[in-house]
Amino acid sequence: MGNTKILLDHGSGGKMAHQLTTEVLLPLFDNPMLAMLHDGAVFEVNKGRLAFSTDSYVVDPIFFPGGDIGDLAVNGTVNDLAMCGAVPRYLSMGLILEEGLPIDDLRRILTSARKALDQAGVQLITGDTKVVPRGAADKIFINTTGIGVVPARVKISADGARPGDKIILSGTMADHGIAVLTQREGLRFESEVISDTAPLNHMVQAILALTRAVHVLRDPTRGGVGTALNEIALQSKVGMVIEEEKLPVTPAVAGICELLGFDPLYLANEGKLLCFVPARHAKAVLSIIQQSPCGRNACIIGQVVADHPGRVIMQTRIGGQRIVDMLSGEQLPRIC
Amino acid sequence: MGNTKILLDHGSGGKMAHQLTTEVLLPLFDNPMLAMLHDGAVFEVNKGRLAFSTDSYVVDPIFFPGGDIGDLAVNGTVNDLAMCGAVPRYLSMGLILEEGLPIDDLRRILTSARKALDQAGVQLITGDTKVVPRGAADKIFINTTGIGVVPARVKISADGARPGDKIILSGTMADHGIAVLTQREGLRFESEVISDTAPLNHMVQAILALTRAVHVLRDPTRGGVGTALNEIALQSKVGMVIEEEKLPVTPAVAGICELLGFDPLYLANEGKLLCFVPARHAKAVLSIIQQSPCGRNACIIGQVVADHPGRVIMQTRIGGQRIVDMLSGEQLPRIC
Repeated sequence: MGNTKILLDHGSGGKMAHQLTTEVLLPLFDNPMLAMLHDGAVFEVNKGRLAFSTDSYVVDPIFFPGGDIGDLAVNGTVNDLAMCGAVPRYLSMGLILEEGLPIDDLRRILTSARKALDQAGVQLITGDTKVVPRGAADKIFINTTGIGVVPARVKISADGARPGDKIILSGTMADHGIAVLTQREGLRFESEVISDTAPLNHMVQAILALTRAVHVLRDPTRGGVGTALNEIALQSKVGMVIEEEKLPVTPAVAGICELLGFDPLYLANEGKLLCFVPARHAKAVLSIIQQSPCGRNACIIGQVVADHPGRVIMQTRIGGQRIVDMLSGEQLPRIC
Repeated sequence: MGNTKILLDHGSGGKMAHQLTTEVLLPLFDNPMLAMLHDGAVFEVNKGRLAFSTDSYVVDPIFFPGGDIGDLAVNGTVNDLAMCGAVPRYLSMGLILEEGLPIDDLRRILTSARKALDQAGVQLITGDTKVVPRGAADKIFINTTGIGVVPARVKISADGARPGDKIILSGTMADHGIAVLTQREGLRFESEVISDTAPLNHMVQAILALTRAVHVLRDPTRGGVGTALNEIALQSKVGMVIEEEKLPVTPAVAGICELLGFDPLYLANEGKLLCFVPARHAKAVLSIIQQSPCGRNACIIGQVVADHPGRVIMQTRIGGQRIVDMLSGEQLPRIC
């Protein structure tokens, strides 16, 4: 790595984050499970398989349209477990509180965390609280770590995409990123954009009840759909072709992105998933996803190809082609 | 709670931390496993039992005599699992990095984390990295969450102490607290005090190989031995009597405590355990602990009694008695 200090870009979910992970972290902790770089690790115990996933939440602001750091922290880890094909069961919560945080804010955050737990059907069973002096943290950071049970015959991993797979996106892009950004910057637009934060485990269970032939599931959070597709293309050693005109974005988000110069392909989502399935299952899986409350706008955005492994190509609206790269440089810090 | 804002005392591991947990956190997330308030939760899966524990590390300074935030974060969670009687197996690590952290510091911290993992025989299998802008965190915070396997017939919990149990402390008190304090304040004394940070899982496995009749295990970290004993007395609804002259403290720590007005009973330890066993097993367990590299100074410090439930009484050196209360007010913030 050329840098000697940590930069905001190292937390972007994009290229530099990838570099920090592969050049600094992985060499120190190399083992096959960690090297998978999936949202969670799957291990065997007592002849069953468990998924294990961790995430720290540092979103700024801590309250935003459609949610707060509390439900975000629960949904995020529930979703990471669901992306392993697991049924999320137990969560831990580690709080780092800044001296001076209003206890009413803490209560409000934990109340929405509790609602999210109930919605997902998950139990918080262990926790930890630390307090640091004023100025040593920003209000509240939350770590959640989760355990889920992986059903038999489910084999989902980021290296599982195969040529011919259809790529389903479960709804519109960039809602969370724009909701946080507009709140943080105090921007006001005619129609308020609401974060999509939501648990996806019920949607995943519905998909797996239909077919266990799902190859990859991924929730495109930091770095957005564009970065998630690139990571999967690299790990699965396949190419992908996506169609620009199929990519779902609400008019409000599209307008704000145009105005501010953001590409929704690289903005965070917190209640959406990418699902890679063999073509023969694609229609049925799409239809199941569309029946879920947060999957109404799901669509097939493209497919996996054997050509150009590691690369994602977009068929543009005007009939051209362009490479969709991994997010490079800082998009939006502290988005989750 | 009388306060409307989070105070440093809420993170002390003492009375106010206890109040925050029981008055704000538990009512929102009430379930029997969380209500145990043990260092970790134990749940059943596939007919086996797993222990699950989380901790965030915010120690200041991040490098101190005898260790750094990296091995502290690994040892701390390994020990919390061991205190459930579990064999620690897997760890997750969530990093929150402040923009500007030297990458060499990060590498040094992670290298010592890796060494601690190897020493404990535990694998890091999933992780997460966030970066926040300069000033939004203090250098680096680390969350580790761990999973361990609880052997059959082991039943260890904070409410398990019984009258007649002997209380064994595995070594000298307050070494970690004094090591961090002197480093933070730039104090120099003739003999440097070194943190006792160490994994205790091998010691616990040796104890359980001898007898599974262990009632309580607890590592007295934040809040020290005094607070840990009080919590166990409350949860087990028993009294305790400890003998002042038995409490092990190194001369260096005793001298610094005297000089600065600290009571070693309330200072943090990161490589010590309290073990409650029926009197008939006490000598054999003590001898096994003393054979462990970090248990050489172990001794029996007192016993559990049926009288004065919820209270810990100290027989003083001069033949009197005094109540050992839970830590009240701030002792040392950011100790782990």
